[in-house]
Amino acid sequence: MTEQFVDPYEVKGKIDYNRLIKEFGLQKIDKKLLQRIQKHTGELHPMLKREIFFAHRDLNWILDEYEKGNPFFLYTGCGPSGPIHIGHLFVWYFTKWLQDKFDVELYFQFTDDEKFLYKNKSYEEIQTWLEENMLDVIAVGFNPKKTHFIIDTKHAALLYPHAIQVAKKITFSTIKSTFGFNDSTNIGSIFFTSMQTVPSFLPSVLKGKNIPCLIPHAVDQDPHFRITRDILPKLSYYKPASIQSTFLPPLTGNEGKMSSSEAAKGILTTDTPAEIKNKINKYAFSGGKATLEEHRKKGGDPEVDIPFQYLRYLFEESDEKLAQLEKDYKSGKLLSGEMKKYAIEKITDFILKHQERRKKAKDLLPKFILKV
Amino acid sequence: MTEQFVDPYEVKGKIDYNRLIKEFGLQKIDKKLLQRIQKHTGELHPMLKREIFFAHRDLNWILDEYEKGNPFFLYTGCGPSGPIHIGHLFVWYFTKWLQDKFDVELYFQFTDDEKFLYKNKSYEEIQTWLEENMLDVIAVGFNPKKTHFIIDTKHAALLYPHAIQVAKKITFSTIKSTFGFNDSTNIGSIFFTSMQTVPSFLPSVLKGKNIPCLIPHAVDQDPHFRITRDILPKLSYYKPASIQSTFLPPLTGNEGKMSSSEAAKGILTTDTPAEIKNKINKYAFSGGKATLEEHRKKGGDPEVDIPFQYLRYLFEESDEKLAQLEKDYKSGKLLSGEMKKYAIEKITDFILKHQERRKKAKDLLPKFILKV
Repeated sequence: MTEQFVDPYEVKGKIDYNRLIKEFGLQKIDKKLLQRIQKHTGELHPMLKREIFFAHRDLNWILDEYEKGNPFFLYTGCGPSGPIHIGHLFVWYFTKWLQDKFDVELYFQFTDDEKFLYKNKSYEEIQTWLEENMLDVIAVGFNPKKTHFIIDTKHAALLYPHAIQVAKKITFSTIKSTFGFNDSTNIGSIFFTSMQTVPSFLPSVLKGKNIPCLIPHAVDQDPHFRITRDILPKLSYYKPASIQSTFLPPLTGNEGKMSSSEAAKGILTTDTPAEIKNKINKYAFSGGKATLEEHRKKGGDPEVDIPFQYLRYLFEESDEKLAQLEKDYKSGKLLSGEMKKYAIEKITDFILKHQERRKKAKDLLPKFILKV
Repeated sequence: MTEQFVDPYEVKGKIDYNRLIKEFGLQKIDKKLLQRIQKHTGELHPMLKREIFFAHRDLNWILDEYEKGNPFFLYTGCGPSGPIHIGHLFVWYFTKWLQDKFDVELYFQFTDDEKFLYKNKSYEEIQTWLEENMLDVIAVGFNPKKTHFIIDTKHAALLYPHAIQVAKKITFSTIKSTFGFNDSTNIGSIFFTSMQTVPSFLPSVLKGKNIPCLIPHAVDQDPHFRITRDILPKLSYYKPASIQSTFLPPLTGNEGKMSSSEAAKGILTTDTPAEIKNKINKYAFSGGKATLEEHRKKGGDPEVDIPFQYLRYLFEESDEKLAQLEKDYKSGKLLSGEMKKYAIEKITDFILKHQERRKKAKDLLPKFILKV
């Protein structure tokens, strides 16, 4: 088994999230906090009930302020270096739910600079993915009146003057220990976290008052935001709060996370129904037993079953249905092939609807780009 | 005596320029090259004849291309962190001469990001100096139709996408050895040289063809442009050529360079005639002898005499007059007080004319800012 490792540039091994909470200094989302959220949202999002969003920083403070009539804004993002897969999508669909339930602004950052600096890809290729990825974000259904895209290279005149104010307070020592960089790291990558920090206080700058910020993100991005939390009080802004998700596992199994650089490991927003079917049937790691007989007798393991896990993450909204699937799988009543078939149906249905909205996204794009 | 040290962030000691030529790998400007320049300019600028601009890289190539009908553009700049002094001015007046004689475009970069990142000054203070410094650059008399101001923070949307392409090719190792940085250096300073590289190829980007670049600068900036010369061919641009000046000495004597952070050491473009007179009389290191009698007998030393040196750098255009001053000073015929008096007259006259143009500069400013 690969040793657990998590930072923004690598996720390895089978992740022990309780260990991560301790190592990163996060707070677990407990029942009391869930109840507090539910007071405002009416219902709880399945990803909260299922502990997919499992940890946070200062979420109680966000709710304190919200209850005082001081609403927060949401900040999340996307590093455009390849096609969008379902491992990206679930965080964004959850973010949309937060936006809708709390009726708040969302600043969505596209870190095209980061991806160019870290990946062995040309500037032009990254720009092509940027264009493609923006369509997927729009297809999620964010409120165009309250959603603002920030593109690092395009909005540099807005971001860079603030990024240098962040950068002045961060030494190479800090970056080295946070991201594991060394003397061979390029100087753009060393600078980059400054750009990722800016959206956490940019709305406060634009509106001329200190506004709380809540960042929903997959937990591997936490090192960036740990730095952000150190720096912002030094610039007289609130520390941003955050809410962290686990990683959607790759098709091949429960280690690491789905990656856009290995297409065979992920289900893409642009996949056809035939491709989805083929990927699930061909690659999805199954928690079923080797033979029908054994499965019927001993039951499958939903914990490691990728089709079941995908249903749990994003594609099965009904908690009752999910519980039934889990129960039937464990008892051996539901077969591995049946679980796959059901997952294929649900994923296909979801992706087709996403694709319908994606088709119309290009026309909506100008509404989303932050005006400067 | 302080040991010689020269990099963009520190100049110490009495500088041995021949040693610097060797250490930095520059070419000395020789008679043959001067003749070649004169073929195009009709006359030679006093700063060339007096070896104030003393070294270069690839200036013969610039003239080769010019003669083939492929003119260069000029690139120089200013880091706005304080008032402009005559140690800045002389480089810019020489640059204006180059612009006029060769009738070429000038890209003038204001590195307000750099000064904010390196100096213990607020962002707002740097912005104030930026506004002030731009007026001085305009007052030099550059051709507004052919001069383009690039302000790093304001033009970041133009610069940053190119700067990251530069940055991707520079490791922290290179920066460490070039600028003497270490793990305590802030990550903005580490990134900055990427921004200083961009204007050397930006006109080629904007015009869609490779254009030769000539950078007039004080020799302490050479480390930045050594990196630039390494990187540009990797991005398919010409290596920029450069022409380097010695440092105008501070009032207090011939070590180091005039600095805007120590007002008492410099003569500013905003000084009144009374201030100029007072600074020269009070602070200017004299090459005269201790007593009138000794001076008449043994003569003064123009080499270390600051009033004479300022005349040599910028304020005495006539070579005959300068030779006469030198001769009379050495022989003891010209006294230290007389040298000071003459220098005060010439400097005051020059600065008053500069101030006249500076008054009208604000209205001209919009013509100079690079349109994007």
